[in-house]
Amino acid sequence: MSELRYNYLKDTWAVIAEERARRPHDYSTHVYEEYGDKSKCPFEPGNESKTPPEIFAIREPGTAPNTPGWKVRVIPNKYPAFRIENSDKADFYYIYDKKGGFGAHEVVIDTPDHYKHIQDFSIEELNYMYIAFRERIKSLYQDLRIKYVQVFKNHGKDAGKSLVHSHSQIIALSKIPKTPDTMIKQSRTYYQKKERCYLCDEIKVELLDGSRIVYENDHYLVYCPYASLYPFEVKIIPKEHSHDFTTVDGEALDKLSDATQQAVRRLHKSLVNPPFNMILYTVPPIRDNPEDPNYFYHIEKHFHWHIEILPRIAIHAGFELGTDYFINPTPPEDAAKFLREVIL
Amino acid sequence: MSELRYNYLKDTWAVIAEERARRPHDYSTHVYEEYGDKSKCPFEPGNESKTPPEIFAIREPGTAPNTPGWKVRVIPNKYPAFRIENSDKADFYYIYDKKGGFGAHEVVIDTPDHYKHIQDFSIEELNYMYIAFRERIKSLYQDLRIKYVQVFKNHGKDAGKSLVHSHSQIIALSKIPKTPDTMIKQSRTYYQKKERCYLCDEIKVELLDGSRIVYENDHYLVYCPYASLYPFEVKIIPKEHSHDFTTVDGEALDKLSDATQQAVRRLHKSLVNPPFNMILYTVPPIRDNPEDPNYFYHIEKHFHWHIEILPRIAIHAGFELGTDYFINPTPPEDAAKFLREVIL
Repeated sequence: MSELRYNYLKDTWAVIAEERARRPHDYSTHVYEEYGDKSKCPFEPGNESKTPPEIFAIREPGTAPNTPGWKVRVIPNKYPAFRIENSDKADFYYIYDKKGGFGAHEVVIDTPDHYKHIQDFSIEELNYMYIAFRERIKSLYQDLRIKYVQVFKNHGKDAGKSLVHSHSQIIALSKIPKTPDTMIKQSRTYYQKKERCYLCDEIKVELLDGSRIVYENDHYLVYCPYASLYPFEVKIIPKEHSHDFTTVDGEALDKLSDATQQAVRRLHKSLVNPPFNMILYTVPPIRDNPEDPNYFYHIEKHFHWHIEILPRIAIHAGFELGTDYFINPTPPEDAAKFLREVIL
Repeated sequence: MSELRYNYLKDTWAVIAEERARRPHDYSTHVYEEYGDKSKCPFEPGNESKTPPEIFAIREPGTAPNTPGWKVRVIPNKYPAFRIENSDKADFYYIYDKKGGFGAHEVVIDTPDHYKHIQDFSIEELNYMYIAFRERIKSLYQDLRIKYVQVFKNHGKDAGKSLVHSHSQIIALSKIPKTPDTMIKQSRTYYQKKERCYLCDEIKVELLDGSRIVYENDHYLVYCPYASLYPFEVKIIPKEHSHDFTTVDGEALDKLSDATQQAVRRLHKSLVNPPFNMILYTVPPIRDNPEDPNYFYHIEKHFHWHIEILPRIAIHAGFELGTDYFINPTPPEDAAKFLREVIL
């Protein structure tokens, strides 16, 4: 059973995931399963019985759950860091705070095609992926014990992907983790001072300045942020203020998939299939917060949902691990220029 | 000229290091220089002219600077992220805060021996390395513009090492970076409530509990922290409260080298030469702090210097990058047991 342990001095939490318990020699084992023989891949249509039963799928009409015919398929992670069965109880051990590993850990199999990766996806295929994210977030937030859902994709072995077949992951937690917590507090502070959304202001600056823009369509802006922590970091964001990703549908969904396709294909071509992590930040549900009753103060007005793509092309070393400052050897203005100039 | 850019939503700073400017194709180039032919290695005795002139060295009597005869040698980094010549001026760009890349970036060549790595170092050789750290920290803090010095070592390519010859790095900054800033605020809060040092309490718990201890000698405790963010994370800490690493000398220095040798050799043997980062946290000098005049309130009583060793054996993926929570697949109690049982 996994548990969260509070690291007091760094003010963050370790997830001690015993389900994944690893002995020293396990770390030298190659964990990236390529399945040259795709018939062995558990994410392959026809192999549905090799995974836990599906939670959600978009299917061809008339096909049964856990059989082929799906376009996108969501299943529980076989080696979950969090489980619904675990306790969410706060507890302690000597001077240390801890908490049960309550939550959920799901896998989105983005496509039935073993050989397709996100840079190959059509608009329709990207739509399926985003619909799966949307529907799972909505469903997980029905459980009042869930305070936050993190959706992410690991692309490439060096970004932490362990199975080659394209997939994303969804983790639901009984706490708002450190980074989104910081984002909420920072955007709330900005709103309290200025009555404006910070990211709306950032978008205005980027449109005015222009040097960091990679692509835009009617609904979305794709740019390399001014204070990019990662080289070739890319942000995808709705131009009009919107706090909740789960409202995206229809034309806005098509346009999000278009913006994603542009971002991912440009990175893929410019950096020659770089590993990257894709991270979705959307508003958490309003819950009671004993630490700060005003925690969610007008969150709908200052939280602006967005997606980050973080290429893993430079290794974070002792400086980054020790300080949480990030040396970025490529100015975002240069990165954006390279990405703009890619011919697709 | 490098600059710091404030990432408002994540409340941290990006170091845009133009001296290291990298175009897309640079990222696919192998940056780990092995120098099978050690005569080409710029860190080799006899090749002193291939590096900038030395800043500090421990030498055999009668040998001249920038010639062979050194035991440990400190030089400016050829590709610095920070420079003394840069401005430390706070500035802005539209809504963004920025700051000049003032600081220092030095390289400690730990040993003249091309083939020796930290797990091979004798007590005497470890002493030389620590004396170099100590003397450079003391010297850098003479400059009143310097607010913080971060000493770290990248061991192994996957920990960000770029030259095979054993070396460490020292970065001096005009700001206290995010992680040490959090540590100072957290330990100060603890002290204000309890009149006790947090890490002194942690040491007491660890000695009482025992399950996470790897090694101890008269002066130092080596253990896997309760809330380890990294699998096989190890902390080396003086058992008696001490805020300032630069006071370490004589027997305490020998014992620090002994504790380090034990920690590093046990990790090396248990995990088969894992890549790791080693990070030294020591008290920053007391400087005027306009944001909080009480920032340094009794810092000598609550800041407890220590060293972290963070093995890079599990890849941080989208979850860690997105949340700043860390999934650790090896409980520190198990890690400590493996490390204790190593026969050296």
